[in-house]
Amino acid sequence: MKVLILGGDGFCGWPTALHLSNQGHDVVIVDNLSRRAIDNELGAESLTPILPIDGRLAAWLELTGKEIGFYHLNLATEYERFLGVLETERPDAVVHFAEQRAAPYSMKSPRHKRYTVDNNVNATHNVLCSVVESGQDIHVVHLGTMGVYGYGTAGMKIPEGYLDIEVTTDTGERVQQQILYPTNPGSVYHMTKTQDQLLFAFYNKNDSVRVTDLHQGIVWGTNTQETSRDERLVNRFDYDGDYGTVLNRFLMQAAVGYPLTVHGTGGQTRAFIHIQDTVRCVELALTNPPEPGERVRILNQMTETHKVRDLAKLVAELTGGQVALVPNPRKESPENELFVKNDLFLDLGLNPTTLSEGLLLEVTEIAKKYAERADLGKIPATSLWTQAQQAGVPELESTP
Amino acid sequence: MKVLILGGDGFCGWPTALHLSNQGHDVVIVDNLSRRAIDNELGAESLTPILPIDGRLAAWLELTGKEIGFYHLNLATEYERFLGVLETERPDAVVHFAEQRAAPYSMKSPRHKRYTVDNNVNATHNVLCSVVESGQDIHVVHLGTMGVYGYGTAGMKIPEGYLDIEVTTDTGERVQQQILYPTNPGSVYHMTKTQDQLLFAFYNKNDSVRVTDLHQGIVWGTNTQETSRDERLVNRFDYDGDYGTVLNRFLMQAAVGYPLTVHGTGGQTRAFIHIQDTVRCVELALTNPPEPGERVRILNQMTETHKVRDLAKLVAELTGGQVALVPNPRKESPENELFVKNDLFLDLGLNPTTLSEGLLLEVTEIAKKYAERADLGKIPATSLWTQAQQAGVPELESTP
Repeated sequence: MKVLILGGDGFCGWPTALHLSNQGHDVVIVDNLSRRAIDNELGAESLTPILPIDGRLAAWLELTGKEIGFYHLNLATEYERFLGVLETERPDAVVHFAEQRAAPYSMKSPRHKRYTVDNNVNATHNVLCSVVESGQDIHVVHLGTMGVYGYGTAGMKIPEGYLDIEVTTDTGERVQQQILYPTNPGSVYHMTKTQDQLLFAFYNKNDSVRVTDLHQGIVWGTNTQETSRDERLVNRFDYDGDYGTVLNRFLMQAAVGYPLTVHGTGGQTRAFIHIQDTVRCVELALTNPPEPGERVRILNQMTETHKVRDLAKLVAELTGGQVALVPNPRKESPENELFVKNDLFLDLGLNPTTLSEGLLLEVTEIAKKYAERADLGKIPATSLWTQAQQAGVPELESTP
Repeated sequence: MKVLILGGDGFCGWPTALHLSNQGHDVVIVDNLSRRAIDNELGAESLTPILPIDGRLAAWLELTGKEIGFYHLNLATEYERFLGVLETERPDAVVHFAEQRAAPYSMKSPRHKRYTVDNNVNATHNVLCSVVESGQDIHVVHLGTMGVYGYGTAGMKIPEGYLDIEVTTDTGERVQQQILYPTNPGSVYHMTKTQDQLLFAFYNKNDSVRVTDLHQGIVWGTNTQETSRDERLVNRFDYDGDYGTVLNRFLMQAAVGYPLTVHGTGGQTRAFIHIQDTVRCVELALTNPPEPGERVRILNQMTETHKVRDLAKLVAELTGGQVALVPNPRKESPENELFVKNDLFLDLGLNPTTLSEGLLLEVTEIAKKYAERADLGKIPATSLWTQAQQAGVPELESTP
């Protein structure tokens, strides 16, 4: 299968590209390297020393004999060039990771809000519009987020994309319907993914584009079987206040002896998935495409739910670290429960990597190994949802 | 009340600006004159001879002594300049008409699809983002569309924005919820208005921005009390296949002896409102803003529903014109019923202008008066929803 990986230099995109290449698929990466540019902007960098994209691709070729193509291209602005790529490569599928993906970054300032909306909505629209213009039957696999649902329900498990409802007609009759789950995004970033859903639904309805939307939980872990093969292939590991996801931040904080910063009470329950399962899920989605004419297929790509404070406690116990409750820079419910269906991937054969098996390995093999590369000043989350919130800075003990 | 009219040179914006000015509000127009640029692109122009914006404003000042301000500004791209306008003008409210508003134009080509998404989503986001950044409590009134709902229901009247549903929990309990009505847009244009709804919901939740979203039906008619005062104030009248709305196209076709082009069977039921009622509704929305902390207020801005073929028949009877069934360039249901609630505006005192009273006047005072300005070649709807549709061109009788 020929697959384009849009955003294939990023945290999820890179290991996905290698995994699919290793499985024998013909892989081409399309990326404008925006994530590296944002590293420069924030003065932060991956804890792991990632190679430039050409070095990564050369290492993979040297190790495996498999060539991965690369186009340096801005999907949100270079429509005609991307259409040309579709015409040249004639892919069976595109996997669309090419969006700004950090909620705190999307709330950092008006400029960051505007960039996130402009970039994400136009990138997704350009993918769909160009697939239609190409005249090719290309399966679009998109990385969505569990955050489109919001984090509360009326008491039922969050379904996979579509909700069964009943409405009462004017004559008093009760009618069953199935609707796209009502969205409740918690940041500008999450909101763009709810806007993506509307783009998918329209292009699916009007142009019969086949779309699979993967509503992913928070990713943890760093490496996959492929990225572990050689240090030149290592995946990025973000620990800064904007791009570091919660569990990876705890691991790194423990490794460097920094307090594990829990926002508010830590009562937020979130869904999680290991990066190894991310790449497996994407391959399962690619090899099980929707039928022609099928509505947008939505799968919940997550394997476990946990409360943030429980994760902090677990990591603290494993490592001997300290937990610090800090102000929450986000405007969100302090406490929530979360129950999620993920039957579709389990039915397709996903065998999840659990937190209990992978966590300690991650601390020793990644966080401790690269701890000397950390810039502790980048750890606190300082992007505020509104002026009423405060940065998540711990009160560090000062030496008298 | 100080009010900014974004898109105040357009078909709805211009008469709204004059109406509010006449009611004693302090009105400032913000517009990039994109609608006039699209006239140039399409080689079409308003049937009525509209003055340039400066001539319009000078005529209004001369006639009434009331000054309307004007900023030539692209809302989708000139964020900083718009923020400066908010800081200079400190408006109580903005009325946001500044979006590409023709469904056929939005489906004309990939370029037109992309322009519509890019322009509309960024314009709306910039309005919200700048209102928050300004720190002012500005009421945002937005022109939405009935098209966000789609044109079918499960048997109940379309409510005003929010739908009462029941869901069944995992323990079998039935729970009542109220959700944003599930969207089903029929074009890229309509889809952007469903994306706007998500922007409003988020900025209302996160930043307490007060928003009123007006889901308007298809507008008919040309002039209002204010634009009728002098020919230099005349409103635009679009009759071309992209921008001409269905009833105005019928009126003009009848006036020039062109067949009344009904797409498909004409069984599509749509909601309508006269332009005079549009401007009254906007003022009612402005003078009845949501309370601080209130969710987005959504009102259905329409007064009647009709089947397209019934409208064609009515106009044909009034004028002695001929009805022609032509292929439908749109991908849509050939027949639908439509029942809509509009209690909120009726409760606020709206006294609708009905089709029966205004229609003939419109034919004689506008369509016949300016008939010699018409370019018959621009009448057929030729923008196709997919390659499977055909242009709405009638078979004109040829003289042997």
